[in-house]
Amino acid sequence: MENNKKVSKAVIKRLPRYYRYLGELLKSGIERISSGELSKRMHVTASQIRQDLNNFGGFGQQGYGYNVKYLHDEIGAILGLDTSKNIVIIGAGNLGNALSNYPGFGKYSFNILALFDSDPSKKDSNRPVPVLMIDEIDKFFEEHHVDIAAITVPKAYAISTAQKVVSLGVKAIWNFAQVDLNEYLPEDVIVQNVHLAESLMQLSYNIKASHLKK
Amino acid sequence: MENNKKVSKAVIKRLPRYYRYLGELLKSGIERISSGELSKRMHVTASQIRQDLNNFGGFGQQGYGYNVKYLHDEIGAILGLDTSKNIVIIGAGNLGNALSNYPGFGKYSFNILALFDSDPSKKDSNRPVPVLMIDEIDKFFEEHHVDIAAITVPKAYAISTAQKVVSLGVKAIWNFAQVDLNEYLPEDVIVQNVHLAESLMQLSYNIKASHLKK
Repeated sequence: MENNKKVSKAVIKRLPRYYRYLGELLKSGIERISSGELSKRMHVTASQIRQDLNNFGGFGQQGYGYNVKYLHDEIGAILGLDTSKNIVIIGAGNLGNALSNYPGFGKYSFNILALFDSDPSKKDSNRPVPVLMIDEIDKFFEEHHVDIAAITVPKAYAISTAQKVVSLGVKAIWNFAQVDLNEYLPEDVIVQNVHLAESLMQLSYNIKASHLKK
Repeated sequence: MENNKKVSKAVIKRLPRYYRYLGELLKSGIERISSGELSKRMHVTASQIRQDLNNFGGFGQQGYGYNVKYLHDEIGAILGLDTSKNIVIIGAGNLGNALSNYPGFGKYSFNILALFDSDPSKKDSNRPVPVLMIDEIDKFFEEHHVDIAAITVPKAYAISTAQKVVSLGVKAIWNFAQVDLNEYLPEDVIVQNVHLAESLMQLSYNIKASHLKK
């Protein structure tokens, strides 16, 4: 489905959750679901779901509900999950390894091709996802198409690492370093941040807010 | 600062970023900053910053800018970072280890006390953050106050693990498993999710959207 409207970040954040839920419904053999039932399961109002889906043309049929498989596949296509994406991970520490072993990326058509590190003791080409040396990266990119680079190196190396992979043609960065990369990269590079410390601070805020309510 | 107003999720998401930036300004020795300059650095409009801070009473002085240290400390207090929080991590796999080694949690007053796992080969009490066995957890909780449990176990164990730590008195869960825990836990338990697959799907969406724009 083609779509040129600007879709809000909040909607984009909810789509993966819809997709995951619909996938679980499919797995349970549920073929059709009313917006009311979907809303109950997802803890989102039915009108919110309708509004969100209307950004993409809407998929409901009045009094008939949603066809789970159709809606699942359409949202998958909106999310770009209908074409597979090749990923490399730069930084083979605990976090990089956690990502390379994360179950479930494969089912969303994300293929992790390799990890790269500068520490020779980490080199291991015999794993399902090999650990290669960072000085092999130019050659690797000549031989492989890479859609996404995940950056799991220490903060001090994050900017130069991102600039390196961008110079090799990467247009999308999945950034785990606590630094805002955008200002150091060309405008057409997409950066998706996972800021763990900020997530923990949000949790801390909510703990404090819950105490103040009492 | 007491605050009983309902603050929007979007504001709560931005606060940690303000806090991080202000911390960096402090470290660079900058004592005072205009809202215009802060806005330029943070790529957020000055009016957005003013609006966000007004949720908590506002901190600016007309024509004078913000006192960096004061604003930093006030936002820290709003985020609850003025009191330290004890964390345990359940699941000593790569992800759990990555969190326990994550630099910077300490400076936000988060203390990671221990990791727990069911695999005896992982037991290691001699590390800075020890790995203890899950059957030691009751005793551990008798001896330590725990504010937050991070759940990094495989999805199939996430619900029972969360229920276990909640039964021991934990009121805040930092959840890395791809499952919505809220519906399985008492209402007063706060869950902060880090859904890595969903983050990657958002990136995928943005890649697709950028192609459609061309």
